[in-house]
Amino acid sequence: MDRKVGIIGVGSSRFGIRNDVNFSELAFESFKQALDDSGIEAKDIEYYVVSNVGIWSSEELPAITLGESLNLVGKGSLRVEAACASGSAGVKTAYEMVKSGNADVVLVLGIEKMNESQTPNVVELIGRAGNYFWEFENFGLTFPGYYALYATAYMNEYQAKEEDLCKVAVKNHYYGARNPNAHFQKEVTIEDCMNSKYVAWPLKLLDSSPITDGSASIIVASEDYIRKNGIKEPVWIKSIGYSTDTSNLSKRSNFLSLRSTVEAAEIAYKKANLNKDEITKKIDVAEVHDCFTIAEILAYEDLGLFPRGEGIKALKDKQTYIGGKIPVNLSGGLKAKGHPIGATGVSMMVELTKQLKYKAEKQRQADIKNGIALAHNVGGTGHYAYVTILSLN
Amino acid sequence: MDRKVGIIGVGSSRFGIRNDVNFSELAFESFKQALDDSGIEAKDIEYYVVSNVGIWSSEELPAITLGESLNLVGKGSLRVEAACASGSAGVKTAYEMVKSGNADVVLVLGIEKMNESQTPNVVELIGRAGNYFWEFENFGLTFPGYYALYATAYMNEYQAKEEDLCKVAVKNHYYGARNPNAHFQKEVTIEDCMNSKYVAWPLKLLDSSPITDGSASIIVASEDYIRKNGIKEPVWIKSIGYSTDTSNLSKRSNFLSLRSTVEAAEIAYKKANLNKDEITKKIDVAEVHDCFTIAEILAYEDLGLFPRGEGIKALKDKQTYIGGKIPVNLSGGLKAKGHPIGATGVSMMVELTKQLKYKAEKQRQADIKNGIALAHNVGGTGHYAYVTILSLN
Repeated sequence: MDRKVGIIGVGSSRFGIRNDVNFSELAFESFKQALDDSGIEAKDIEYYVVSNVGIWSSEELPAITLGESLNLVGKGSLRVEAACASGSAGVKTAYEMVKSGNADVVLVLGIEKMNESQTPNVVELIGRAGNYFWEFENFGLTFPGYYALYATAYMNEYQAKEEDLCKVAVKNHYYGARNPNAHFQKEVTIEDCMNSKYVAWPLKLLDSSPITDGSASIIVASEDYIRKNGIKEPVWIKSIGYSTDTSNLSKRSNFLSLRSTVEAAEIAYKKANLNKDEITKKIDVAEVHDCFTIAEILAYEDLGLFPRGEGIKALKDKQTYIGGKIPVNLSGGLKAKGHPIGATGVSMMVELTKQLKYKAEKQRQADIKNGIALAHNVGGTGHYAYVTILSLN
Repeated sequence: MDRKVGIIGVGSSRFGIRNDVNFSELAFESFKQALDDSGIEAKDIEYYVVSNVGIWSSEELPAITLGESLNLVGKGSLRVEAACASGSAGVKTAYEMVKSGNADVVLVLGIEKMNESQTPNVVELIGRAGNYFWEFENFGLTFPGYYALYATAYMNEYQAKEEDLCKVAVKNHYYGARNPNAHFQKEVTIEDCMNSKYVAWPLKLLDSSPITDGSASIIVASEDYIRKNGIKEPVWIKSIGYSTDTSNLSKRSNFLSLRSTVEAAEIAYKKANLNKDEITKKIDVAEVHDCFTIAEILAYEDLGLFPRGEGIKALKDKQTYIGGKIPVNLSGGLKAKGHPIGATGVSMMVELTKQLKYKAEKQRQADIKNGIALAHNVGGTGHYAYVTILSLN
């Protein structure tokens, strides 16, 4: 019989440039919240999964460093990496640990402290999030450059304009301005976005997510444990879909879609018994991977939220704002909340758990009808994709 | 009901200084063998876990690079890191993926290509496998230095001599000389070991495992899948125990034991219904983590194979050779087979699967009576420990 796995506690640090705290202190901010939220104690945790890319850190054993400072010495642990999807990969690891019956209570802590390094160093390292040898080193493609290939292909195919992409930034900054944990808590206009500097044409500074420090924690537990210990009703993890794509972008058949997202969604929907054709009727709220504005538009279409080529129309019609067909990235998304890469996927679970339980700030709280939420987390340029379905039932 | 998880295919590259192959080619050597051994095809694999520390590599997304070259694009994937225990952490991740019912066939590929970097660079990075900030950077402790603390404490407590430690090297080189995949395929004498240069007193060059390139692969599958597809009888994963210890060695209460090994063994024995008191009667063969000679002696005692302080007597009496109480490291161990850190834990499963199935080279094949084997894999200086029990039944 299937063991159900629930999220019993969530926490998030403040996202931003966090030179005010060290690595352990940044982790503690979200860990403490998640513990308090769950009502359990650190000693009840059997295993902790750390989602962290960490190539810019001098501590080579980040999970162990955190074990000592968070009082988790003696628990089992491992570090998980799937580029910018590390957070979701960590959640999947913990989910299966509990579902397998091997553990009852597992912590997932996603963290990245990127501003410790110099910005050129970070940009250089993020640039490797593809195929380093062929496409970065030999052809000079950078990470914004990879997504710019998708943006130009999309603009060419569907006559989209740079202004259309900027609408993602406007929406996500609108909600980020209402999220006290967001890196950028200010609204931007289409003009601000259009006037910002090009990073890789047609993508500009305000089309891009920032370099952010942050941590996010969730505690997952088995249904048995939840019932036996009288823990408050959790948010259940219904399914997690996953896929990967080619390392070299030059080996892909088109630049209008992230194939890995399509495949990950298919698995997630099937395992959660959701019909792709009525997905926006079933899902109340979604967090999608908007590392660049174009990425959010691709996500709309790859996840089946809107038909091919109609992502920009959905934005124009405010269909992904509260009150629209399906609100997306009410946290501010990677774009405004920020993108501490190892923490991002975990942070999506934190946000959606709050949304499903009506615990988000009032001005950015979605209407919850079916009690179902979707998280979409990408690593690299669609190199990894994870789609997670959460549910109140 | 518990889903059983079996190892249906295993493979290992040749270990050594492998400047003759690139990263993907090194992975292919073990992957191809595991596939052929299992009888399944690459398309049957649903997910692949890559165990890799990889801090010396320029490819930031090693799992994705391998996905492209091994024809696994579209499968799910993630990279797992638990320092030198990354391999076992990867096996645990795959084991729970299958046990949870979320997948039927998963590949674990452990790989490290360490000789790409300059040796001082590797030594510096391995040195960080503790607490970088306090003990490496501030006090100048290196990785051999960490284990030297344990060696001196042990020698002081039990009147052990440097010659006693060297006996581990002699045994493991003896078996390494009979393993065609081993890094060092030559025997050494006590005199060779005693005459080798000090690395960190009392540990000498021949007390230390080498810097090795290598890959190891196993394919795990659910019992259902194995039965339905008429796959030959696998080796079953009975249990995996785990623990962690403090980041800073200065916070530990003693240097006569790796606490994490004791705790990991306790969990593994309990889950596999093994009584610690009769462990050497039940277990036919073991691979333990001998990154330094002292580490193997500590493992004997921490795993309960021999009483406290009697590890050196066991060596003197050849109790861990074939024909002794329990043969240990018939592969040559990390000491002679080599220690490509991400591959090591997976390589232990490869070796023990072969031992249990009487497929090791004749001169280093254990007698299999109960069909039970033990793998012990440490990350850092006992920062992580994993103990895995394999069984023919």
